[in-house]
Amino acid sequence: MPAGEFCNGSPPPPPGSDDEEEWLWSQIKAEARCDAESEPALASYLYSTILSHSSLERSLAFHLGNKLCSSTLLSTLLYDLFLDIFTKDSSLRSATVADLRAARYRDPACISFSHCLLNYKGFLALQVILFVLFVCGVLVRIINCIPDLKSPRFCSSVDLLQRTVLCCFQAHRVAHNLWTQCRKPLALALQSRISDVFAVDIHPAARIGKGILFDHATGVVVGETAVIGNNVSILHHVTLGGTGKFGGDRHPKIGDGVLIGAAATILGNVKIGEGAKIGAGSVVLIDVPARTTAVGNPARLVGGRQQPTKHEEIPGESMDHTSFIFDWSDYII
Amino acid sequence: MPAGEFCNGSPPPPPGSDDEEEWLWSQIKAEARCDAESEPALASYLYSTILSHSSLERSLAFHLGNKLCSSTLLSTLLYDLFLDIFTKDSSLRSATVADLRAARYRDPACISFSHCLLNYKGFLALQVILFVLFVCGVLVRIINCIPDLKSPRFCSSVDLLQRTVLCCFQAHRVAHNLWTQCRKPLALALQSRISDVFAVDIHPAARIGKGILFDHATGVVVGETAVIGNNVSILHHVTLGGTGKFGGDRHPKIGDGVLIGAAATILGNVKIGEGAKIGAGSVVLIDVPARTTAVGNPARLVGGRQQPTKHEEIPGESMDHTSFIFDWSDYII
Amino acid sequence: MPAGEFCNGSPPPPPGSDDEEEWLWSQIKAEARCDAESEPALASYLYSTILSHSSLERSLAFHLGNKLCSSTLLSTLLYDLFLDIFTKDSSLRSATVADLRAARYRDPACISFSHCLLNYKGFLALQVILFVLFVCGVLVRIINCIPDLKSPRFCSSVDLLQRTVLCCFQAHRVAHNLWTQCRKPLALALQSRISDVFAVDIHPAARIGKGILFDHATGVVVGETAVIGNNVSILHHVTLGGTGKFGGDRHPKIGDGVLIGAAATILGNVKIGEGAKIGAGSVVLIDVPARTTAVGNPARLVGGRQQPTKHEEIPGESMDHTSFIFDWSDYII
Amino acid sequence: MPAGEFCNGSPPPPPGSDDEEEWLWSQIKAEARCDAESEPALASYLYSTILSHSSLERSLAFHLGNKLCSSTLLSTLLYDLFLDIFTKDSSLRSATVADLRAARYRDPACISFSHCLLNYKGFLALQVILFVLFVCGVLVRIINCIPDLKSPRFCSSVDLLQRTVLCCFQAHRVAHNLWTQCRKPLALALQSRISDVFAVDIHPAARIGKGILFDHATGVVVGETAVIGNNVSILHHVTLGGTGKFGGDRHPKIGDGVLIGAAATILGNVKIGEGAKIGAGSVVLIDVPARTTAVGNPARLVGGRQQPTKHEEIPGESMDHTSFIFDWSDYII
Amino acid sequence: MPAGEFCNGSPPPPPGSDDEEEWLWSQIKAEARCDAESEPALASYLYSTILSHSSLERSLAFHLGNKLCSSTLLSTLLYDLFLDIFTKDSSLRSATVADLRAARYRDPACISFSHCLLNYKGFLALQVILFVLFVCGVLVRIINCIPDLKSPRFCSSVDLLQRTVLCCFQAHRVAHNLWTQCRKPLALALQSRISDVFAVDIHPAARIGKGILFDHATGVVVGETAVIGNNVSILHHVTLGGTGKFGGDRHPKIGDGVLIGAAATILGNVKIGEGAKIGAGSVVLIDVPARTTAVGNPARLVGGRQQPTKHEEIPGESMDHTSFIFDWSDYII
Amino acid sequence: MPAGEFCNGSPPPPPGSDDEEEWLWSQIKAEARCDAESEPALASYLYSTILSHSSLERSLAFHLGNKLCSSTLLSTLLYDLFLDIFTKDSSLRSATVADLRAARYRDPACISFSHCLLNYKGFLALQVILFVLFVCGVLVRIINCIPDLKSPRFCSSVDLLQRTVLCCFQAHRVAHNLWTQCRKPLALALQSRISDVFAVDIHPAARIGKGILFDHATGVVVGETAVIGNNVSILHHVTLGGTGKFGGDRHPKIGDGVLIGAAATILGNVKIGEGAKIGAGSVVLIDVPARTTAVGNPARLVGGRQQPTKHEEIPGESMDHTSFIFDWSDYII
Repeated sequence: MPAGEFCNGSPPPPPGSDDEEEWLWSQIKAEARCDAESEPALASYLYSTILSHSSLERSLAFHLGNKLCSSTLLSTLLYDLFLDIFTKDSSLRSATVADLRAARYRDPACISFSHCLLNYKGFLALQVILFVLFVCGVLVRIINCIPDLKSPRFCSSVDLLQRTVLCCFQAHRVAHNLWTQCRKPLALALQSRISDVFAVDIHPAARIGKGILFDHATGVVVGETAVIGNNVSILHHVTLGGTGKFGGDRHPKIGDGVLIGAAATILGNVKIGEGAKIGAGSVVLIDVPARTTAVGNPARLVGGRQQPTKHEEIPGESMDHTSFIFDWSDYII
Repeated sequence: MPAGEFCNGSPPPPPGSDDEEEWLWSQIKAEARCDAESEPALASYLYSTILSHSSLERSLAFHLGNKLCSSTLLSTLLYDLFLDIFTKDSSLRSATVADLRAARYRDPACISFSHCLLNYKGFLALQVILFVLFVCGVLVRIINCIPDLKSPRFCSSVDLLQRTVLCCFQAHRVAHNLWTQCRKPLALALQSRISDVFAVDIHPAARIGKGILFDHATGVVVGETAVIGNNVSILHHVTLGGTGKFGGDRHPKIGDGVLIGAAATILGNVKIGEGAKIGAGSVVLIDVPARTTAVGNPARLVGGRQQPTKHEEIPGESMDHTSFIFDWSDYII
Repeated sequence: MPAGEFCNGSPPPPPGSDDEEEWLWSQIKAEARCDAESEPALASYLYSTILSHSSLERSLAFHLGNKLCSSTLLSTLLYDLFLDIFTKDSSLRSATVADLRAARYRDPACISFSHCLLNYKGFLALQVILFVLFVCGVLVRIINCIPDLKSPRFCSSVDLLQRTVLCCFQAHRVAHNLWTQCRKPLALALQSRISDVFAVDIHPAARIGKGILFDHATGVVVGETAVIGNNVSILHHVTLGGTGKFGGDRHPKIGDGVLIGAAATILGNVKIGEGAKIGAGSVVLIDVPARTTAVGNPARLVGGRQQPTKHEEIPGESMDHTSFIFDWSDYII
Repeated sequence: MPAGEFCNGSPPPPPGSDDEEEWLWSQIKAEARCDAESEPALASYLYSTILSHSSLERSLAFHLGNKLCSSTLLSTLLYDLFLDIFTKDSSLRSATVADLRAARYRDPACISFSHCLLNYKGFLALQVILFVLFVCGVLVRIINCIPDLKSPRFCSSVDLLQRTVLCCFQAHRVAHNLWTQCRKPLALALQSRISDVFAVDIHPAARIGKGILFDHATGVVVGETAVIGNNVSILHHVTLGGTGKFGGDRHPKIGDGVLIGAAATILGNVKIGEGAKIGAGSVVLIDVPARTTAVGNPARLVGGRQQPTKHEEIPGESMDHTSFIFDWSDYII
Repeated sequence: MPAGEFCNGSPPPPPGSDDEEEWLWSQIKAEARCDAESEPALASYLYSTILSHSSLERSLAFHLGNKLCSSTLLSTLLYDLFLDIFTKDSSLRSATVADLRAARYRDPACISFSHCLLNYKGFLALQVILFVLFVCGVLVRIINCIPDLKSPRFCSSVDLLQRTVLCCFQAHRVAHNLWTQCRKPLALALQSRISDVFAVDIHPAARIGKGILFDHATGVVVGETAVIGNNVSILHHVTLGGTGKFGGDRHPKIGDGVLIGAAATILGNVKIGEGAKIGAGSVVLIDVPARTTAVGNPARLVGGRQQPTKHEEIPGESMDHTSFIFDWSDYII
Repeated sequence: MPAGEFCNGSPPPPPGSDDEEEWLWSQIKAEARCDAESEPALASYLYSTILSHSSLERSLAFHLGNKLCSSTLLSTLLYDLFLDIFTKDSSLRSATVADLRAARYRDPACISFSHCLLNYKGFLALQVILFVLFVCGVLVRIINCIPDLKSPRFCSSVDLLQRTVLCCFQAHRVAHNLWTQCRKPLALALQSRISDVFAVDIHPAARIGKGILFDHATGVVVGETAVIGNNVSILHHVTLGGTGKFGGDRHPKIGDGVLIGAAATILGNVKIGEGAKIGAGSVVLIDVPARTTAVGNPARLVGGRQQPTKHEEIPGESMDHTSFIFDWSDYII
């Protein structure tokens, strides 16, 4: 994306820098102003959702309140809830910024930040889940507490997954009591509204990192004890599901930088290593090592179980869904 | 679920007993009262949907009316329709009770009956379909007429599927005229609303048993001549589809106690035997014998076609999605 | 469908003839009048959506405006937009007629034209996309310019796909500037509403032919540079997706008369030849020759890669999803 | 009104006869059907409000629920409340019938019963007040218990007012405890909605007879301890107000057959005798004897205080607002 | 109003000139644009109601549709009705322009044309009544056919009232059949909505001239056979009422240039001469000669019945409500 | 009102004391909780409007946002505007408290503070006007700056009106620029919504004191340059109107403690002295001295112009509307 595309005249600051939020909001307003001028039929919509607001969190709270409201859950009530939390907590806002950046840079069909803010249901659903996590006292964006993971590009030489899982474990201890004690009814009511409005069903106790892209998002299902690391990209119809009728840790753990193709189904408490790639339509019931590719139903590792092919790229960022085909077509004769 | 979890202080009566409906409604109100106190932001919602009503059927009719209404189909009209039928027919109400019980006991993420009543779109969609079946004169919950099938645990030693199919056939003869003569426009309008609001598309002429769990439910498609027995559990994105452009009996017949994993596709007038298990992502185009497991695309029987492995459990109740993996991984090397 | 089923007393004119639109509208009103009489609870709905309108385009604009509106996108605004374009352009209207015919004749569960007009979300989503294409200046229904393709039955002896692709290429050159210059914000806002309301996500820059059936439609995702020929039938959960994080021509090209089964995933800039059939649940990453069948994950050609079995039928019209099973079951043993 | 004007082909039964309600409902449906045919733009409205309902009380409950609902008081809730009571109590329904008849025969601008049912806010507000009275346990339509008052034409030779007031006194004793104990919050919430929606402010503890016409109705204010007899006609902007800041019986008592002209203000616990006439714009602070006329600000009796002119007609039925002008113009020179 | 106040930079054209409508619309858009910039909270509202529209009639139809809609009368239906007529008939549009001018120049609290268009309920109610008159086939703006009356300042030397009444008589002959034959249900439904939403109750058969100001408007009641000439100003709570229970010509006839003060009540088929003034709170039951002043309850002529004081001004334009006080205070001692 | 009536168990603190707001809010919540328990049908309404909020200003902002919203002015936008100002400014909140107290103690039909907060449209309209005044920079509650006027009982021995008017004059100088420069569009849009929803039309530039009771409120009109002192009670249909078509100071000035009866009309820049009483239906065009009573149309002073009867009570607090009748009836014979 050439710098010339930014309407607000200044180049974006480095990801994660202090003034990124401010820059982004000014950029979003510039885009919306430009769109309102070229398309009068949308101007009212753009003013009410973006241009009449004084900050990104007010705009987001307003938009979510109006999207998720129903005749029995009023928009004013939802707006009030969202705004209260988004205003209080700066880490939530920086997570929002990272998710907007993820959609803008990884999805070639995403033409502007304001487009993502208004129209991407994966992005919008995720913000509600983050809100719920925060409200429920779960450690939000669990990996935040590990400083060197904050960089948008994770350090591939370290087994981040281990640390993620460790961290999750600690977070889970903290969260467990909170979750069982507290604001579950609110969390579940919001999950239900997201499922109705966006057809996205993410359990509010799932733990999700930063810089996540849910592309298209329709039909995504993420279970209660699932964990998703940083910079992961997940396509539509993906299931991170459980098994059995009893509680406990029963859903997948997804490492940083993973790419999960459309309609892939991953079931049970399995580990998808950092930088792994799951092909579209795959059914995965076993662990997948870091930086390998699993495809098919049942899923097999490209290159074979013993010596799977390893790739250098970070699939969650490169979004390359089909490069394994050459190996694969060999494999399938 | 330990008895201590029940807010209303008394243990649940045996499934199917006469006072189960009353107990359940008192339990739901106790849960809602408890939630309203701990979460004032939701209290208005809980009062309007549950606590202000005098019975389960009024609460359900109110909730469905408000969920499914649109600017051209008013909530008052839908409420009136639902309430009229739910009040009249006690068999519909006992089916509702069985479905609530199915979700509460089989889905570990389901923390209360009120949570299911308010938020489970699989449950809600199913109640509308039952309403429609009743309105259209189709014999509701077809197996009701066979007394010994009413037990929530089906008798595994009998080939229930045969009787189901037989019964269906008889029901179908009765239903056929009704369906072709009568309230199809209403039935189809409601199907359309369910598809818009819940992304669940169940044809109103499908015949569906008791104690059904549609878990997550997003993307489920059930065709016109499909039959689903008792105590079946079906995950999201499952298709029970037809083939060809001509009418007639062209959709799957699912026996009692079957478990169908996420994103499985079953096409054509095939029989899935009682207690069978269909793996996630499977594509099934042929009959599956009772108590066997079919996985993969195209689906194969675990243990092989000639002597498939048989299991003792009832998968629709145990919800075990992945235990076949040991056999399978042998199979796939 | 016997002629006796038509309420308005006259047989349908030949497809594509000048008076087809008029006949269809009179048929739809006759159906709605009949339904309103037999089902008073729906009469208000049928009058507001169909019977109070003077033409098919007014009825459609009204219905879409009320379906897609939200608290920030008013129904009056949407109605105004749709009506303006539908009234102006007769080619859009004839495309609408062809799509109604496609649903009515190919889907045995479709009992009337009015049922399709009111309740088929695949049909409704498609009309919005066509509206958007027109508004954005993209050559609508691209293959219109090739006269002999207008026939509802395409001439199987010609490699239409080549011409389609050629035509697409030319259209794309024209469209490219328009798309980059113009009404993208409106197009994307409508895409977002379709995705929320119908769970159907079709990029407004995709190019789509006439006589298309999106059956059930839930979960369909069609990417930015995808092309869909005439008389194609696409089931629910189908993905025509891209790969990579960069723009450019990166989505599938679907020839005329193709049938794509439920939950099939086709990725990348691959060509599905005219009259090909893609089995349910298949994952297709490579070209599929005309009139062959691809099934499985990864998808293979029935009959083998070297000499795939060729069929005479047009699967997009016959809707036969499972006939390949005989070959296949041989194949899989 | 010539008999030929009745669409349903049969002449109206005598007022108060048993089959009047049935005849009226059939007449209203006939009128609505006729209007729906001649005005397609209104057909949807007429079907939803009248033609889709099976009885007058359902239609009325539906219409009131939709008129009075707000974002915090749902239409389904109001519909449920109204329907429950209207269905239970036949005396409420016969009062509704008498009020419809009053508007139809006394207001020359009232062209049909359905017009009154749908559009007369005085009529609609009154039905809600009656509902509230019933719900609060106040003896509804207080004079019902005196049989010979039930006739639509009251017997002018009897001082009905005395009996009315006596009866009120008894009713009040019963009502007092109920009013102070019970459903005041509901009553006051409905009063507030009527005041917002219709600009009609009738305290729910006021006691109101049968056959009342509130013509135009805008701005009518009736206080807490006011009593209105049978067959009274009250124009818009009329106040039946109190005085002082303490409770107790402080509002006017209006006898049977009284006519109160537009913008008249009657204050304090004064008695307006049966068959009296209050001129438009009058300010009345003292008792007015039966069958006399009071006009002016301050109001004086036409003919003088000592020997006021007496009329034979029943002004509440003749609706003659200006005949006193001859006497008056003499009076005023 | 100094010319400098006009945002759009050009002075207003002469009243009634051909380009006045165009100038006014450009002025309204300039005002709205200015307001949207200075008050972002209102920008969405101003864009949706004014700035997104291409003409005054579209803006007005949109605004009225959204103001008057209810859950049973959809905004899209009303918008469609209004737009259809406003677009067709240029005389309706020129009447709208004259009414906007009347409010802007006569009411010192009216700060802009856009303020009047959006917020003046007297103006808005009047436009609906004009629409209804047109739809019903009544000769709209009855005096239009007399050319020399079109001037915004009427010629005071002519007894316009005579001609008005004559014209009314002719119009009435034409209208009578139409009114009895045709679109009464629609007319009365709209009257009812105006009464609910604006508390303004104007019978759709009343005949109303051009350049009318209904100031504040709350509580205005105008009866079925009332006639209002050109350039009349009417304050809130004014009643032009009838008498008796029989039909026929029973409401007041108001001449050109009349001013009727707040809460005045005029009853019966009396004539208020051109340029007369009716004091606030007056009750008028007899004819009032041209250019005289009637005050009090009952109303008397200032200066005495025999030789009433005559004024030169046109009260409907000067809006002088209290200048008679000097005469009057003499009169009342 | 005996202390026993207060649900929250503690007696009210002295008016104006620091903890009055806190006490009132706790009292309102206690009342609402009590009502919610006794009337389940209203519980949802009471929770959403009162019980789910953490402060009086949040409850009020929520309630007003939902009352005044329309399809083009969203409730979330209004809520945001109201909450922002109510939270910031404590003087606005103390004015709200004084107005609630005024209604509760002066209107015998007002049974609780929560009843007033939810249902009194006079109270609600007034809060919006105060909000608008604040937003527009006009000195709110103008007399606030004169300390000894803050007492709820004004000191009758001082000519407060003089000081009020002086203060107004100064306030007006400040306000003039602000009003002409700034947020007029917002102010007028809100005035319009109040007029539509409550039928109350108060110009946002009017200046209004503390402890005001607008009883019933329907039809009240207050002009642009009107001033209303402290502890004034105004009944419904009252007009404080202007005269003429030019701007400037042209509306009444109402002193402290005045009572204005129903349907009274006061026109022009006249002064109503402190503690004066205006009879119902009066038309007042001249000054009324302090503590005298004016009645009739045209209004005269009770006791005669030269030596009008003076009363000791404060009519705005005693609410005695009719005690003058003894003098008056002498007067009128």
